[in-house]
Amino acid sequence: MSESFIRNIPQGSITTPKGFKAAGGHCGIKRSGKKDLAIIYSDAEETIAKGLFTTNTLPAAPVLLSRLRLRNGRLRAVVINSGVANACTGQQGYKNADEVTEEVANILGLKKNMVAMCSTGKIGVPLPVETIKRGLKYLSKKISSEGGHYAAEAIMTTDTREKQLAYELTLNSGKVRIGAMAKGAGMINPNMATMLALITTDARITAVQMKKILTDAVEMSFNKINIDGDMSTNDSVIAMANGLSEVEVRPNSADEKMFREAFNKICLALAEMIVRDGEGATKFVKIKVTGAKTRKDASLAARAVSNSILFKVALYGQNPNWGRLMDALGYSGASISADKISVKFGDIEAVKGGVAVDDSEHLLKTYMKQREVDILIDLSLGSCQEEILTCDIGRRYIEINI
Amino acid sequence: MSESFIRNIPQGSITTPKGFKAAGGHCGIKRSGKKDLAIIYSDAEETIAKGLFTTNTLPAAPVLLSRLRLRNGRLRAVVINSGVANACTGQQGYKNADEVTEEVANILGLKKNMVAMCSTGKIGVPLPVETIKRGLKYLSKKISSEGGHYAAEAIMTTDTREKQLAYELTLNSGKVRIGAMAKGAGMINPNMATMLALITTDARITAVQMKKILTDAVEMSFNKINIDGDMSTNDSVIAMANGLSEVEVRPNSADEKMFREAFNKICLALAEMIVRDGEGATKFVKIKVTGAKTRKDASLAARAVSNSILFKVALYGQNPNWGRLMDALGYSGASISADKISVKFGDIEAVKGGVAVDDSEHLLKTYMKQREVDILIDLSLGSCQEEILTCDIGRRYIEINI
Repeated sequence: MSESFIRNIPQGSITTPKGFKAAGGHCGIKRSGKKDLAIIYSDAEETIAKGLFTTNTLPAAPVLLSRLRLRNGRLRAVVINSGVANACTGQQGYKNADEVTEEVANILGLKKNMVAMCSTGKIGVPLPVETIKRGLKYLSKKISSEGGHYAAEAIMTTDTREKQLAYELTLNSGKVRIGAMAKGAGMINPNMATMLALITTDARITAVQMKKILTDAVEMSFNKINIDGDMSTNDSVIAMANGLSEVEVRPNSADEKMFREAFNKICLALAEMIVRDGEGATKFVKIKVTGAKTRKDASLAARAVSNSILFKVALYGQNPNWGRLMDALGYSGASISADKISVKFGDIEAVKGGVAVDDSEHLLKTYMKQREVDILIDLSLGSCQEEILTCDIGRRYIEINI
Repeated sequence: MSESFIRNIPQGSITTPKGFKAAGGHCGIKRSGKKDLAIIYSDAEETIAKGLFTTNTLPAAPVLLSRLRLRNGRLRAVVINSGVANACTGQQGYKNADEVTEEVANILGLKKNMVAMCSTGKIGVPLPVETIKRGLKYLSKKISSEGGHYAAEAIMTTDTREKQLAYELTLNSGKVRIGAMAKGAGMINPNMATMLALITTDARITAVQMKKILTDAVEMSFNKINIDGDMSTNDSVIAMANGLSEVEVRPNSADEKMFREAFNKICLALAEMIVRDGEGATKFVKIKVTGAKTRKDASLAARAVSNSILFKVALYGQNPNWGRLMDALGYSGASISADKISVKFGDIEAVKGGVAVDDSEHLLKTYMKQREVDILIDLSLGSCQEEILTCDIGRRYIEINI
């Protein structure tokens, strides 16, 4: 499919789509003085919204609250804090999140159930409600259509850079915009780090359409960086559409197909930004498994390899230690046959028929010096495949998480 | 049960039981010049033997070979090399292992099917058969009842110290001895590292008895250090009994009960040695989950926590970051209820009813400075429990595995 209808907007953000405003600032949660509070607001009374949240069985208070608020498929605002996750905080944690959203609603003249909340930071620490409420009073005055960048900055924790972008789509019916921001997930793989993403659009689409589009897009982006099966307590992805472009994306139209493509693309771009900014990461690694009997086998195999700390340390050391990869395949639970496995690093064959390819080591070592590493594992048992994006683990990872 | 019938033998080894001999030396596999080849030999023609091997679906050639050799429940010798795992080496790898055991059989005047093999080291590298054969000629002359310590040294890879011990048991029927050695598993948890263990005894017991005793002992020792579900390509535990004490351990006797107790104890002692010598480990950590609905829930919960790299890095940093522990519980797949979870570090309550215990942080920080850390997680949903031994992950781990 051609992508010529998608234009990347320089300096784009979640406030690039018409009628979305935002603000981000420091209210006092983070001792460092860095920004720690953001508000996203939509001008349109009829702003449809959908959310997808962590599958962790100990979801944080803001996740429980936002799930509820999103039930009717509409939202006007999202408040996000960083520094404190408000997870494992019991009923008081829920009350605190509720109180913060109530304050946002009061300030912005909204009903409370039109406000969702996301939090990211340390687990088990109470939300400093009074600090946040004081911050909100100040912050609400800063809400503007130029505020997207501040919001993207305010949701960062161990991220080293903001993650945001926006596209303008030239559909048959007219132009619409999609803006997005994320914070990621110091370490992506395995699990644990909080991932937040917010996607805004001024297209006019229904909640039913959005649900399907968002679910599919998350499946092929954020879930490919291995944050699904073992999500953190706080992972949240929220999409809002306010229709202010006055361009309707009709169900099952060519325009919807294009919109969907752009939506997928923006989510994948955010997911890649998250992996590239993995805590202490020095490599961006694509692990593709092909030839699996079933999709589940492909996924099990790709995930086991991308979760192997020994293999990730080898990646960091620029060491083409495919033995660690084979070991991970062996305990992955995927159906495999030793003498059918082939492994390539880029174009270089490392393993064929389950054994080492002679004289490949020198080439492999050179290849491993690249910042971007592509690993192709062919199980030669079927036609199913899976691709996972991951990164290495090195010295900096330890320092960051000590 | 009283343990007064068990006496730890100072400087004990696998050659402490009567009629077991061993040797260990450098044959040239390791470039460092360190020992890399060991032989264990039993004098008695009727030496019963049982083995338990990795569940990895890509088992190494020596695992395939030894499984076969152990089918008849008898062995006379085991040859072990370190430095090369002989895994992912295909049919040639199997032929190589076969050739090495044939050479051992020729030198020692045994039938080939009386010799098993274990290997540990790098995956995917061919076994240097000629080097090993040359080494065997030299090594076979050194086989003696004082050779246990050399063998224990020769099976080491990233281990920083030998792991071996021996007990003398005063049974009702007389005295028997059990000797044991292991190499561990640089990193124990999660998975991957190779673990080898050899246990010898001069007690007279049957292959049927040994099978049950070994299986139970491994379940409550090596499998508690989380090397079962996701074993390496090479993990092997082999037990040999030659009966040369002339003391019979009759089935279902009090003596068998005592023998079993001592056997469990020696396996647990080896397992603990492996964890204490975890690659770069600075902490020895017991994670006990109680109050689980089912044994499987207890196991899932304990394993998820002990596998969490974020939590292991916190342990290294002496950081009582129980939030990472809770997060792991949340994605463990175990049945949990947020407001029922309690967590203790030693005697200090960190979490009660799913939330932080006030004013515990200072005490917890002091506690975390200990070398040995006990963590008790009470799910308060049932009566099942599980305990896992693990260690931290820190800077040295990265340096060792780069």
